Amino acid sequence: MSAATATAQREPLYFEDLAVGRRFRSGDAMMTAEAMKRYAAEFDPQPFHLDEQAAMGTFFDGLAASGWHTAGVTMRLTVETLSIAGGLIGAGTEELRWPKPTRAGDRLHLDIEVLEARTSRSRPEIGLVKVRTTTLNQADEAVQHLVVTIVVPRRGAKETHGG
Amino acid sequence: MSAATATAQREPLYFEDLAVGRRFRSGDAMMTAEAMKRYAAEFDPQPFHLDEQAAMGTFFDGLAASGWHTAGVTMRLTVETLSIAGGLIGAGTEELRWPKPTRAGDRLHLDIEVLEARTSRSRPEIGLVKVRTTTLNQADEAVQHLVVTIVVPRRGAKETHGG
Repeated sequence: MSAATATAQREPLYFEDLAVGRRFRSGDAMMTAEAMKRYAAEFDPQPFHLDEQAAMGTFFDGLAASGWHTAGVTMRLTVETLSIAGGLIGAGTEELRWPKPTRAGDRLHLDIEVLEARTSRSRPEIGLVKVRTTTLNQADEAVQHLVVTIVVPRRGAKETHGG
Repeated sequence: MSAATATAQREPLYFEDLAVGRRFRSGDAMMTAEAMKRYAAEFDPQPFHLDEQAAMGTFFDGLAASGWHTAGVTMRLTVETLSIAGGLIGAGTEELRWPKPTRAGDRLHLDIEVLEARTSRSRPEIGLVKVRTTTLNQADEAVQHLVVTIVVPRRGAKETHGG
């Protein structure tokens, strides 16, 4: 889980810090069969996510993580990597795809890139930043593509609470 | 969790069953503070998802579920509602938004609507079906909008394994 990366990013990030083209690399997360089955039992109880034997001969031909589990692990790594002032809050997701299954034993990390940054017309104290987050396995194969717009306060703007 | 709905849908659904405009209503899922905090501790450890007191004065002004938790619960309800032959497998998500926070005590259900249905040119034995899934709370307020394309086998097509 890369304490080094997490520590390096502990200074809160403001809109002004997220220039278009800036990239961040997360720490690593290990995917275990036990965690994959536990997630599936609660949120995605299908044979190919629950049991190695039952997964043989299915679309995935072997145990695969629920895509929503991969998305959750991606969120965890993002929170550890981007310390946005006020918190990491999504305003909308325009792409979410799983081009390859996540398998037990995979070691995942993120490549996060700032695609667009603009200030809000109606709320000048905040910015809207579009980021592409690619989740990669140990062979650097993409297992998830995510494009999301996050809400980021501007530096020095009066903080708003509860808005 | 609506055993009635689940039982009513146990016949596997094929491409031919998912006509444009067809709608499905899921059973209910209760969101508890305990489950919200447990999810957040594992996947989205931010104050407004972890602790009632720490959540006061934040963007959400009170404990709110991680959007990815709402997405996971939505997947669970979808699996219980749509018994797709071969399993519920997403080919891509083009919209995912959380217009309102999910709160502790919310009772969620889904309104699923078939938007588009087409067969695959390269793999005539499968269809691609675009569905809009709206996650609603007990006041019928939308807490999540999701538009996803799922892979659905055609009825009578030779089953493929491991493809």
